[in-house]
Amino acid sequence: MKPLYGERLKRFRAGLAAKKLDAFLVTDLKNIRYLTGFTGSSAYAIVSAGKAFFLTDPRYTAQSREEVEGFRVRIFKKALDTIAQTVSEMKAGVIGFESGSLSFDNYSKLKKALRPKAALKPFAALVSGLRSVKDPFEIERISEAARLLDRGFTYAMKVVKPGAVESEAAYSIETFFRKRGAEALAFDTIIASGERGALPHGKASEKRIKKGEFVVVDMGALLNGYNSDETRTFVTGRPSVKQKEVYGVVREAQAAAIESVRPGVKASAVDLAARGVIEKAGYGKYFGHGTGHGVGLDIHEGPGLGPASPELLEEGMVITVEPGIYIPGWGGVRIEDMVLVTKNGARLLTSTNRDLVIL
Amino acid sequence: MKPLYGERLKRFRAGLAAKKLDAFLVTDLKNIRYLTGFTGSSAYAIVSAGKAFFLTDPRYTAQSREEVEGFRVRIFKKALDTIAQTVSEMKAGVIGFESGSLSFDNYSKLKKALRPKAALKPFAALVSGLRSVKDPFEIERISEAARLLDRGFTYAMKVVKPGAVESEAAYSIETFFRKRGAEALAFDTIIASGERGALPHGKASEKRIKKGEFVVVDMGALLNGYNSDETRTFVTGRPSVKQKEVYGVVREAQAAAIESVRPGVKASAVDLAARGVIEKAGYGKYFGHGTGHGVGLDIHEGPGLGPASPELLEEGMVITVEPGIYIPGWGGVRIEDMVLVTKNGARLLTSTNRDLVIL
Repeated sequence: MKPLYGERLKRFRAGLAAKKLDAFLVTDLKNIRYLTGFTGSSAYAIVSAGKAFFLTDPRYTAQSREEVEGFRVRIFKKALDTIAQTVSEMKAGVIGFESGSLSFDNYSKLKKALRPKAALKPFAALVSGLRSVKDPFEIERISEAARLLDRGFTYAMKVVKPGAVESEAAYSIETFFRKRGAEALAFDTIIASGERGALPHGKASEKRIKKGEFVVVDMGALLNGYNSDETRTFVTGRPSVKQKEVYGVVREAQAAAIESVRPGVKASAVDLAARGVIEKAGYGKYFGHGTGHGVGLDIHEGPGLGPASPELLEEGMVITVEPGIYIPGWGGVRIEDMVLVTKNGARLLTSTNRDLVIL
Repeated sequence: MKPLYGERLKRFRAGLAAKKLDAFLVTDLKNIRYLTGFTGSSAYAIVSAGKAFFLTDPRYTAQSREEVEGFRVRIFKKALDTIAQTVSEMKAGVIGFESGSLSFDNYSKLKKALRPKAALKPFAALVSGLRSVKDPFEIERISEAARLLDRGFTYAMKVVKPGAVESEAAYSIETFFRKRGAEALAFDTIIASGERGALPHGKASEKRIKKGEFVVVDMGALLNGYNSDETRTFVTGRPSVKQKEVYGVVREAQAAAIESVRPGVKASAVDLAARGVIEKAGYGKYFGHGTGHGVGLDIHEGPGLGPASPELLEEGMVITVEPGIYIPGWGGVRIEDMVLVTKNGARLLTSTNRDLVIL
């Protein structure tokens, strides 16, 4: 299966028309990859209703010829000069740009180079908005990254154990992923045992895992450009009554949130489904983050799933569902899966055992 | 040895006074690490003549308490609100900011939040300018990263050989560094054999190394926050007459450039010393990049060493010296070392054999 770049460009152009823009300058490299197929580290794309240019520097001449589809490729010596010249050829008057990824410095230089013919108009999320709904090619890639991640959890259950040092276990898991084709981790692996589990982002440390602790393991693999993201909380030795109770609440909260997923539902409603269960059990103040986020070319992308998220879920979105309870001085539990929004509801992309596993 | 944060802040404040700024907002995370000691991924620093504030989010409460020196720590929920409030308390009128690292989006929001009391003034390189001259703590750290890199080259000479796949050798070298304490590679390892050597940035590929080829190996290790950077070009099997000649020219160019290094010399003069040798040998058009760059918390930082670089070398700068010859369809040679500028000239920080090594 190949990405349908033509379709993506068509959807993007519909967005330009709706915003009454003559052209748009794309500077975010993930957005450029999404639209053009280019995977290198230096590029710009400029799109109007009738034209599409891809700009890169001489290091990427050969690579851009291989990768870029449906765009005219231009090689630049000075990026801003070539952008200005291209915009001028396109006779574009109002040009949208990505205000979250263009630095103030480059904005100022570009504004000067385009003056007085063209004006720049900032947009926070025009391409990234498109990206939140995945096409079949992306769903296949993300599913592959998720399957690799499940295999990594099977491996993690062997190396995360009493006596192991968190960071050593993390490194061993990273090696597992890299040997199986992952180009990188999606993020620094979180292995947070005992009290450290109360830190939602407890990156693996020099701490040694002890008996009787919860261990939050949150990890992701980057495979063929797409990210995966999953969390399991294990217990070392027989769980206490309180450990069982807290784990059970998070498990129930996650199930309720997954159950609530379907097209047309508010992203905030999924958050509230999880939050309601946790609040009802009396742990509301220990759940300080949102219930999930989109995953794709970026590990965090749209839609957000928080109490105030404005988005509606759509078929084809891939999101995480990851409620947690974090009790300072005691520890934490988070259970996270990736789900695809289908017309029949959530389809789970990750499948590691969700019961409390004793290591 | 500990970093002298007080000294760094003093030099920075002298810069603020010279630019007639009431305060400065630091947003580049490497610059923040340099000034405060903080190694996390979310922070701002605001400095005036009499005050110094460090801002981070609640994930880093504990870490900032441990790491940050000489700054008052504030934990924010919304960064821009806390920045605006802090600036207002400082009664600062003109505030410098880092225009290369602040996005247009954040600039616009901040401008609005500060209006009408304070005005923002863009600066491209106020802190990074300070960073080009290293203090004793940094020279020790960089030297350690360079020594680890030399050990990596000894290892590389075992795994880079005819029959090996470039990317597999690269992965094996990465593992070598990680096992010895490197937190990451300084950049994706370049292993470019045969014709691929003509690409100055030929990231290790699926190509198998053959007999009779040049192999450019350019790598770096990140150790305790500091980068190292070194290149050697090996040959697989007995070198041809042309291979010996081209290697000899690059070797001589590098020696001439290193010889020219001393405080007060123009950075461009070091470039011209190397370029002169290569041009005289008739390969001028095959040397398309600058001769070097500063190295420190960033793998590429000031000063640049190109034909038009405006900087003067100063005692304490750490730079790479890396001329090369790249002949399309044939291959390439680059030899790169890190040198410290001392009052007596260049002191080499990397020491792998510079003679043509046959693998």
